[in-house]
Amino acid sequence: MGKTLTYKILESHLVEGRLAPGEPIAIRIDQTLTQDATGTTAFLLFESMGVPRVRTDLSVSYIDHNMAGFGPENHNDHLYLQTVAAKSGVYHSRAGNGICHQVHLERFGRPGATLLGSDSHTPTGGGIGMVAIGAGGLDVAVAMAGGPFYLACPKVLGVKLTGRLNDWVAAKDVILKLLSILSTKGNVGWVVEYFGPGAETLSVPQRSTITNMGAELGVTTSLFASDEQTRRFLAAQKREQDYRPLQGDADAEYDRVIEIDLSKLEPLAACPSSPDNVKTVREIAGTKVGQVAIGSCTNSSYTDLMMVTGVLKGRRTDPMVELGISPGSREVLEMLARNAALADLIAAGARILESGCGPCIGQGFSPADDVVSLRTFNRNFAGRTGSKNDRAYLVSPETAVAAALTGEITDPRDLSERMGIAFPRIEMPSQFHIDDSMIEPPLDEAKAKQAEVVRGRTIVVPETPPALQKRLDGQVLLKCGDKITTDHIMPAGTFLKLRSNVPEYAKVVFNCFNEPGSPTFAERALALKARGVGGIIVAGESYGQGSSREHAALCPMYLGVRVVIAKTIERIHRANLINFCIVPIRFADPADYDRLEAGDELTIDDLIGAVRNAETVTIVRKRDGLEFAGLLELSSRDREVLLAAGLLSYTREKAHA
Amino acid sequence: MGKTLTYKILESHLVEGRLAPGEPIAIRIDQTLTQDATGTTAFLLFESMGVPRVRTDLSVSYIDHNMAGFGPENHNDHLYLQTVAAKSGVYHSRAGNGICHQVHLERFGRPGATLLGSDSHTPTGGGIGMVAIGAGGLDVAVAMAGGPFYLACPKVLGVKLTGRLNDWVAAKDVILKLLSILSTKGNVGWVVEYFGPGAETLSVPQRSTITNMGAELGVTTSLFASDEQTRRFLAAQKREQDYRPLQGDADAEYDRVIEIDLSKLEPLAACPSSPDNVKTVREIAGTKVGQVAIGSCTNSSYTDLMMVTGVLKGRRTDPMVELGISPGSREVLEMLARNAALADLIAAGARILESGCGPCIGQGFSPADDVVSLRTFNRNFAGRTGSKNDRAYLVSPETAVAAALTGEITDPRDLSERMGIAFPRIEMPSQFHIDDSMIEPPLDEAKAKQAEVVRGRTIVVPETPPALQKRLDGQVLLKCGDKITTDHIMPAGTFLKLRSNVPEYAKVVFNCFNEPGSPTFAERALALKARGVGGIIVAGESYGQGSSREHAALCPMYLGVRVVIAKTIERIHRANLINFCIVPIRFADPADYDRLEAGDELTIDDLIGAVRNAETVTIVRKRDGLEFAGLLELSSRDREVLLAAGLLSYTREKAHA
Repeated sequence: MGKTLTYKILESHLVEGRLAPGEPIAIRIDQTLTQDATGTTAFLLFESMGVPRVRTDLSVSYIDHNMAGFGPENHNDHLYLQTVAAKSGVYHSRAGNGICHQVHLERFGRPGATLLGSDSHTPTGGGIGMVAIGAGGLDVAVAMAGGPFYLACPKVLGVKLTGRLNDWVAAKDVILKLLSILSTKGNVGWVVEYFGPGAETLSVPQRSTITNMGAELGVTTSLFASDEQTRRFLAAQKREQDYRPLQGDADAEYDRVIEIDLSKLEPLAACPSSPDNVKTVREIAGTKVGQVAIGSCTNSSYTDLMMVTGVLKGRRTDPMVELGISPGSREVLEMLARNAALADLIAAGARILESGCGPCIGQGFSPADDVVSLRTFNRNFAGRTGSKNDRAYLVSPETAVAAALTGEITDPRDLSERMGIAFPRIEMPSQFHIDDSMIEPPLDEAKAKQAEVVRGRTIVVPETPPALQKRLDGQVLLKCGDKITTDHIMPAGTFLKLRSNVPEYAKVVFNCFNEPGSPTFAERALALKARGVGGIIVAGESYGQGSSREHAALCPMYLGVRVVIAKTIERIHRANLINFCIVPIRFADPADYDRLEAGDELTIDDLIGAVRNAETVTIVRKRDGLEFAGLLELSSRDREVLLAAGLLSYTREKAHA
Repeated sequence: MGKTLTYKILESHLVEGRLAPGEPIAIRIDQTLTQDATGTTAFLLFESMGVPRVRTDLSVSYIDHNMAGFGPENHNDHLYLQTVAAKSGVYHSRAGNGICHQVHLERFGRPGATLLGSDSHTPTGGGIGMVAIGAGGLDVAVAMAGGPFYLACPKVLGVKLTGRLNDWVAAKDVILKLLSILSTKGNVGWVVEYFGPGAETLSVPQRSTITNMGAELGVTTSLFASDEQTRRFLAAQKREQDYRPLQGDADAEYDRVIEIDLSKLEPLAACPSSPDNVKTVREIAGTKVGQVAIGSCTNSSYTDLMMVTGVLKGRRTDPMVELGISPGSREVLEMLARNAALADLIAAGARILESGCGPCIGQGFSPADDVVSLRTFNRNFAGRTGSKNDRAYLVSPETAVAAALTGEITDPRDLSERMGIAFPRIEMPSQFHIDDSMIEPPLDEAKAKQAEVVRGRTIVVPETPPALQKRLDGQVLLKCGDKITTDHIMPAGTFLKLRSNVPEYAKVVFNCFNEPGSPTFAERALALKARGVGGIIVAGESYGQGSSREHAALCPMYLGVRVVIAKTIERIHRANLINFCIVPIRFADPADYDRLEAGDELTIDDLIGAVRNAETVTIVRKRDGLEFAGLLELSSRDREVLLAAGLLSYTREKAHA
């Protein structure tokens, strides 16, 4: 029976475990990437490990999230990352050089390699045949220090593509189609592998749009074969030496196969407020639009923006639409500036935003109240635009630019009849404009030893978690409901700049539950911590869903939270809790959730013993002796990490063992 | 005895009073401009006046301040302004079209006309021979409704320019030189009029840099003659029909004359943290620089940015410098995009920011801690960058770009020897690229009647001040020291977006004095207001200095503040207080300041009577009967405005009289 490409790459990187679905495995990481919103913490933790130079083939630090610069924090982060990267043997892509995933694809990605990135859209790299996985910053720091990455061996979903995309139908519509089939839930533990004759017709930028937004399925990663398209892309990036052909065997055994005929697809949109709330653009055509945003790691390649230019050139955007365009990289931006496309976009009325994440992560360009915003991005969770009650639709650049012209949601296939616009077919150029001068190479080892790291006042080394106590005396700080996201736990938006400063950022933990005039969650938690009482969070279903931000564990840990008891806890957040030595516990009987209240004092008699080798733990409420059972569900490595007081200490111990 | 150009223009617009220094006069306003940070309030007040269409020759609304878009507020403002402008007979320059002063100069400014703008840098228009004055939004709203503008007839300072600027010495150095002579204080009530053979050598963009930053002198306005340079500029803007020659008489009588020989000037810098803390660049050369920002209404013309491009082309910025460039207008941006300059700037490592105020008003691009920032802007008050303890230097684009290359403060004249760079002499083009498609013309009257104004939830009509009470029973809400700026009263930065929503913005009045855990100024004030007690602010010297923001009167008024008692109150803020019916009182004996305390209950027995016709007012402290005198110093119009419950009601009454 043949092998999938996924398993071939995993096999060549396997350092622990057995390649069978669900088995715990560890793989060697060839490359890492970090961005600035997660990277400062990752590097501060990396520095704490006492490993002077990274041990990967390649590690790259990127600035793309925090570029707005309201206050000194962003620039402090840039200077810290630039200097710590130079010292640690890491390349550093400066502010303005572009979005990490786009730049990494262009300049560093390598077929067959493994990439671990502290950003959930790291699977973009699957577009050139990498196994590229998103993880928490501490996991990436461990990989930088040479440690393997632990994961559950995935099942492989084969997506067989046939046919060819019609004019005005885009790669974005492929992944929107798949989201409509699979939804954003229930796909944990899967890798999506695209193959078939349709896959061969897609260029690397198109493939990367698809693997990028695979993140919204909740899968481990997505990837395409490395083939002639890959060779062409790498050659156009003057990196043909990085090319090697790679594909799954013709008789590869997939755990499931879905077939999509590209020629049957039509323009789609993810309607508010979920990436899987997919409708055809036809169904929602005519809806008035007030804002269009084109960019993000999903859709800001040269070919995407040249198509947009082709449509807009010599025309004007609708007077009631604000159009913002954020080119994905400086390479893309400079090419557009050199070939007059940028001038055409400006003439058409576009606002040219910086090459960075920008509006996609709510860093500016938020829509007005009640205004429909069409975005070529990957997420449209309520409020992610920065505006409450937003109405954000995720679409292809083709659909986005159509609305920018007409002022309403418009099937781009209608542009021809409606406005006489022919589809501007853009081929990937045979040669991209290469300029790596905004990527600072690391210092050599001799110079690195002397080099100083710049640490602004907002760069604060996070506290290390304390060791588990044998007996936990704790108090329920918060009882929250179902579907608490990491955004509820740690707000982003204007607070995003606080990521490098845990004591400061921790002040807004659970900010959405704080009430004016009452002590905040943080104040209550710190008061408990000062008294030596452990903080406990009680939650319903799907606690910690959404982004992978580890601050949702790190900041509560800093505030003295030691245990989370929930009906269910989401996978990545659960891993982050363990990494920062917060014990994740599931109610054995969900009905116990109803019995608990905020303020309850709870005791666990032998927490260390339970973490060491028990499957359940008994929790007792002080005031009435109520007893209930919690499920631990820990792997043996999870137990070791918790007993070592978190992943950082665990890694240090292993290094010295 | 000959006339100054200033007096010629004032004379042709005089509607009340006598043209003699210090006399109260009123002038007809031909043009108005508003920007979005002041414009929403101006338009909300204009709407309250019941005048359906503006009565000026031309009124233009601009979006340039609030473009970052963190939350719905900014886009709400844009939509409100665009739709209210269309309905009111006002042109609207959309977000992305550029900075109001730059665009107004390019497309609308007219020699000999009067321009009133709700922005303190409105005197930019003096570069084409206008009398262009900055004022509060309510004053501009009154002008839009056809009312005259009241001011004290100015004295005229003649600045005679001789010689010609040497290579690498810039218009910016002329105004920095003047600031070093006159300082930022003591120039109230003056207009600066430039003349002489040196003035004739300066292009309109150069002249506008000088008149723009004349605002920092604290003068009423600055202006140049309208001459061949003016004709060339207007012709290059395809507006030669707006040209007419205008100048002061050869024997014009100036109240003072200063002579500056342009050929003797050298590169200058305003050091932290005042525009008049001027040193030669030579004196401070070698200081390490971490950030360079080029742009703002002072220095972002096409010629400025082409000079910067000439220096940077084919070179790289220093790796430890972040360089941000904000083109002053879309016209400038598109020209740079069309002639490959933009590509050269990007290649050199510049971050291209949007055409808007941006970093100059602390809307992003704040420097890191302890990092020196060189800026081509007009103000470097401490903290204005958005970073506390900032180290911001104001310099010419020539000096800025030199530092971007070398990483340290560098006299640009040394670039030739140091790096072999010849001065790129840039002539103003004979033809600018004209594209007004982002300027929405107003609707015709018939359509305007039907047109709907879009009002997002953050667009809130400000409360009208209540009428003065005969007897004031008040309480001192705050006793503050000397030099309280409008920034202390109404913080900008991330709060700037709240300008259209007084109840929300009022929450942060005197935010810098609020302490965590204690009731805020706003909470205490509203509690008093609910009890019918008037709020009183007691202050030291120079209360209300800094920017002209009328929210520093409007928001305290909303919170129930009725009286300010200070040692001295700055001119513009004092006018704003009167406009919003807060009575400004000066201590007759400054020693009484020391006797008062926060919380004191004070009574003024017949406030209305005093405002009607007294020079002083007697104030009594309840607890001990302490009596002290306050000086009113009100003009007869001031008295009428206060008795009418503020300028809005006064204007309404006059309209119906």
